[in-house]
Amino acid sequence: MSWIYFVDLFGTCVFAISGVLTAIHKKFDLVGSLIIGFVTAIGGGTIRDVLIGRFPVGWLNDRYYFLAVIIGFMVAYLFKNEVMKLKRSMFLFDTIGIGLFTILGIEISMNQGLNYEISIVLGVISACFGGIIRDVLTNEIPLIFRKEIYASACFLGGLIYLVSRELHLPQNANILLSILTVSLIRYFSIRYAWSLQILKNENEGFSADDEI
Amino acid sequence: MSWIYFVDLFGTCVFAISGVLTAIHKKFDLVGSLIIGFVTAIGGGTIRDVLIGRFPVGWLNDRYYFLAVIIGFMVAYLFKNEVMKLKRSMFLFDTIGIGLFTILGIEISMNQGLNYEISIVLGVISACFGGIIRDVLTNEIPLIFRKEIYASACFLGGLIYLVSRELHLPQNANILLSILTVSLIRYFSIRYAWSLQILKNENEGFSADDEI
Amino acid sequence: MSWIYFVDLFGTCVFAISGVLTAIHKKFDLVGSLIIGFVTAIGGGTIRDVLIGRFPVGWLNDRYYFLAVIIGFMVAYLFKNEVMKLKRSMFLFDTIGIGLFTILGIEISMNQGLNYEISIVLGVISACFGGIIRDVLTNEIPLIFRKEIYASACFLGGLIYLVSRELHLPQNANILLSILTVSLIRYFSIRYAWSLQILKNENEGFSADDEI
Repeated sequence: MSWIYFVDLFGTCVFAISGVLTAIHKKFDLVGSLIIGFVTAIGGGTIRDVLIGRFPVGWLNDRYYFLAVIIGFMVAYLFKNEVMKLKRSMFLFDTIGIGLFTILGIEISMNQGLNYEISIVLGVISACFGGIIRDVLTNEIPLIFRKEIYASACFLGGLIYLVSRELHLPQNANILLSILTVSLIRYFSIRYAWSLQILKNENEGFSADDEI
Repeated sequence: MSWIYFVDLFGTCVFAISGVLTAIHKKFDLVGSLIIGFVTAIGGGTIRDVLIGRFPVGWLNDRYYFLAVIIGFMVAYLFKNEVMKLKRSMFLFDTIGIGLFTILGIEISMNQGLNYEISIVLGVISACFGGIIRDVLTNEIPLIFRKEIYASACFLGGLIYLVSRELHLPQNANILLSILTVSLIRYFSIRYAWSLQILKNENEGFSADDEI
Repeated sequence: MSWIYFVDLFGTCVFAISGVLTAIHKKFDLVGSLIIGFVTAIGGGTIRDVLIGRFPVGWLNDRYYFLAVIIGFMVAYLFKNEVMKLKRSMFLFDTIGIGLFTILGIEISMNQGLNYEISIVLGVISACFGGIIRDVLTNEIPLIFRKEIYASACFLGGLIYLVSRELHLPQNANILLSILTVSLIRYFSIRYAWSLQILKNENEGFSADDEI
């Protein structure tokens, strides 16, 4: 599963960038921005590992996650104007990231013998709670609570992953299918402003899914 | 202890309703409301389990807690006006819930060989931290920090539970006695506006103990 | 290492005082102030233990940490005017506390076989996350995110500790050297208003490092 490992690291880096940009927007200093980037990138997976009881938590034993956060931090700080212009690409990476985080969370949970619905919940937690922690630490009401498509996309992607897994589809095809589902749902939801309830969204901080 | 299990599930459901109503009040969307209901209901017990090192955390291995949250979510969404009118009943269930959560937290802690005062602290955490997480996620200063009777009631109920436990009172009598203590303290504190310090309370969100 | 144990308890007590004073400033009631004092004092170490997987978490098995929090709570409540006048001493104790918490966090992490950079991160988490939780619970943007010297001082102190440890300096000399580093960095940063970015600091709540 080596390509998955690289995409995972890449997703971690993209999440860190998103966190650092939010922190810069809030006028946090260097260390504050680094911490926010860090918790945004590894928060979801950390909560999942703690809930399941996988210790030490994933990133403690793998220098590369740490490195991915540092790289994300430096990219966000040094090239923040360029990154802001690349919103479209950021959105793509961010979506691939949450799709993959969902799937990895499900896979890890299933391997621990947890049942289907709990595994999907843990997949969604893996993908979404990093952003929730970011918003809590920056004193915002978490964005996800007002834009349901984000978590719903993870949920549906996870559902498709579990179904294809039971149908014994090839692993790679399954992963691509699930990530594609997450990406398309998010893409069309933003393109056509899907929302179960219309909300006037006060636009706070940077979010890769604000525009496309 | 099967009736306790059912009351526990019922308390979980009532806590979920309280969380979802707060989220609706804050204009959260469906998924946001579901997540808030979820963490309100299972947050306190989850923190307790993580602190003690009981893994996987309780609700991961029991579908019924999950189901209780879903039912609470649906009840709150579909019958929100009716539920708001039932504040008196909600208060009753909520109080029984926190009383029971306190006792269950103490019992679990004692079984892990922890000492008395730590067990009471963990009992109070079990009962109160779900609401604290709810308030943090909805960007409010936790209600409990300004209305001390809530946590104090749990503390006193827990104290009575421990004393009767040492006196080897029958388990069921002990539980009823403790829950009754919590309920009466909360009832009279609201009835007669007890508070160690007078506070002008800005009334934010729904709280079952606002009125009776 | 018995003198370290006492300084650790003393640091816990000082952190509790800082938390309780913030809570009083925010007009929290008795129980709210106690809870804030508690999480400020034991929050950082608790997160470290949970991430590493050291269960039950440290303070659950040692009554004296608990007692240190209670004493801090009583001191802050009964002598709050006197304590406010002792800002200079509070700053000293607070700095020794974070220096020591950083070192203890590193030592514990190294003993679990974690690598250098992760150990430093966990040291900084041990020292700083109690204050972050305090600020989140009181609905403030964490102070540390805007005053980088606090976390940077911990980081540099931790770095010096690790280097001297590898050079096999005597343990006590090493500890004193590291704490001195943290203290001097904080002292001079406040004395000469060091900051990588100039910030207008809205002064919220009590913080031992506001003035000297």
